[in-house]
Amino acid sequence: MRAAVLRDGRMVYRDDVPDPVPEPGQVLVGVRACGICGSDLHFAAHGAEVVAMTARVAADAGTMNIDLGGDVFMGHEFSAEVLEAGPETETHPPGTLVTSLPILLSTKGFEPIVYSNTTMGGYAERMLLSAPLLLPIPNGLDFKHAALTEPMAVGLHAVNKSNIQPGEKALVLGCGPIGIAIIAALRLRGVETIVACDFSPKRRELATAMGAHRALDPAQGSPFDTVKPAVVFEAVGVPGIIDDVLLRARPGSRLVVAGVCMQPDTVHPFFAIAKEMSVQFVLAYNPEEFGESLRALAEGDIDVTPLITGEVGLEGVGRAFDDLADPERHCKILVTP
Amino acid sequence: MRAAVLRDGRMVYRDDVPDPVPEPGQVLVGVRACGICGSDLHFAAHGAEVVAMTARVAADAGTMNIDLGGDVFMGHEFSAEVLEAGPETETHPPGTLVTSLPILLSTKGFEPIVYSNTTMGGYAERMLLSAPLLLPIPNGLDFKHAALTEPMAVGLHAVNKSNIQPGEKALVLGCGPIGIAIIAALRLRGVETIVACDFSPKRRELATAMGAHRALDPAQGSPFDTVKPAVVFEAVGVPGIIDDVLLRARPGSRLVVAGVCMQPDTVHPFFAIAKEMSVQFVLAYNPEEFGESLRALAEGDIDVTPLITGEVGLEGVGRAFDDLADPERHCKILVTP
Repeated sequence: MRAAVLRDGRMVYRDDVPDPVPEPGQVLVGVRACGICGSDLHFAAHGAEVVAMTARVAADAGTMNIDLGGDVFMGHEFSAEVLEAGPETETHPPGTLVTSLPILLSTKGFEPIVYSNTTMGGYAERMLLSAPLLLPIPNGLDFKHAALTEPMAVGLHAVNKSNIQPGEKALVLGCGPIGIAIIAALRLRGVETIVACDFSPKRRELATAMGAHRALDPAQGSPFDTVKPAVVFEAVGVPGIIDDVLLRARPGSRLVVAGVCMQPDTVHPFFAIAKEMSVQFVLAYNPEEFGESLRALAEGDIDVTPLITGEVGLEGVGRAFDDLADPERHCKILVTP
Repeated sequence: MRAAVLRDGRMVYRDDVPDPVPEPGQVLVGVRACGICGSDLHFAAHGAEVVAMTARVAADAGTMNIDLGGDVFMGHEFSAEVLEAGPETETHPPGTLVTSLPILLSTKGFEPIVYSNTTMGGYAERMLLSAPLLLPIPNGLDFKHAALTEPMAVGLHAVNKSNIQPGEKALVLGCGPIGIAIIAALRLRGVETIVACDFSPKRRELATAMGAHRALDPAQGSPFDTVKPAVVFEAVGVPGIIDDVLLRARPGSRLVVAGVCMQPDTVHPFFAIAKEMSVQFVLAYNPEEFGESLRALAEGDIDVTPLITGEVGLEGVGRAFDDLADPERHCKILVTP
């Protein structure tokens, strides 16, 4: 079958990938749409670093078992159509549109569907999913929108962990897909003042379309000169941002770090101590949040239409990875095999 | 009157300090005991840096208004005896033993009793306190113990901010006065596993005497090899400690930073992201915690006897500042004017 795979840091099109075969408990699905995630771009460019850092932090816990010398399958923001259940497996009828937590259960345990030499991700014609984790796409929701259940769940999780109340002001630094997902989740939670901040005019426009009450250009001055947020969401992930927030935020502020900074970073603990700040680092979501994200999309509480800025086939994934570098052109590109 | 003042980085004895005169709402008290705090040692050595950093972080908020070229009064862990109320001021009868939040209310507003060219602290024969803030020392509690109400409140506040539950394991890094106060507060809150960590054998002994169930020597290996804490209290305050906790702690851990690190510090945000950790920076305490700290001392729930390792007069403050550098000799020295 056809797939786009990561080989030597580039996405490569293949038409000779063996079809995956479902074990008991697994379901073969046809991928309908798969969003390209910023973490995939980062892994393509800095895979060795990600593997090394993950090994360092995981210690005795499960390390990523990836050979970067071999082809790597990726794609964890997907919607799909049920094709065929594995042996002794009950599931939805063929043709049912579904999404799922990106986790594959097997007789060996479970594996995240994120980066793997063996487990197919969503940049492929077909893949395996786990029967108990399948969520049918409700309400006739467009399968392209359903593919964004996953990134929108990331935003919902960040907002849940912040424990923000509707009357508290929120500042979102960075309006890439994660920042945008946070904005949508803040709006869903009824937060009355949502201020976004991004250098890109296009991204600021998108932030407003997705629910920000105001979008600031940091080139015009620090957003903290304009807004005194109770909660700051950091969705940039480059060195220096955390310290700038610690310096400028008001006493008692909570900082939620959703941007993934892989490099060492310099901070002044004293800034945070003097103001008794808290910093909550966040990652991913829980199954309830994934389900709530899908419901919010299906019920029209979150509309991801403005987010989707492009669509490519499997042959176009390599170019799409390059194109995503320009925030004026793209936010989320869907792969539709 | 007599006082010990900070002059050019050294504590100097003076016998020519003018007696403070209480305004309305203020009370003249005779200092009975005043603990020497680590932050005073730090201010003596690095006052200019503290003033500069505070100005940087305070921005438009109240900056420290201190002339380091002039004498600086310090001492904020005190117990005292009521001598004389200011005009139109009702207070406890002369001779009443009291303590107080280290804040002086005046017609101009309020000033922390911590570092000042004008407001006397506890390293003096007499000082001013605020009538509404006076707390009589109850239950015949030794005034020397009552002087430690303030540092014990710091520990209580750190523990309260951690929201630790009795069944959660606590690890306390650093057993100086703040680490020890945290240990005492954890014990007060019924935490069932309290592990302390310090290079000094004397400090480990003290930690155990004050409530730690176990005290580890970090020279023998990382404490995280021995204990998997839910909450880590950092009471060391030197660069590198925070990152080491982020690297070694288990997923979902909460880090409470009570140590005051004034230098820039390097952290790897990725460590904390991968494990969804939270970092709560803490400072000081609120009035309720101050009151609870005094009650805990008075009711014998916290016994600070092992903490007090020395006692000096006002002439001895300079030497005491030097002596406190050796953790084997001293933990808390009281000044008894």
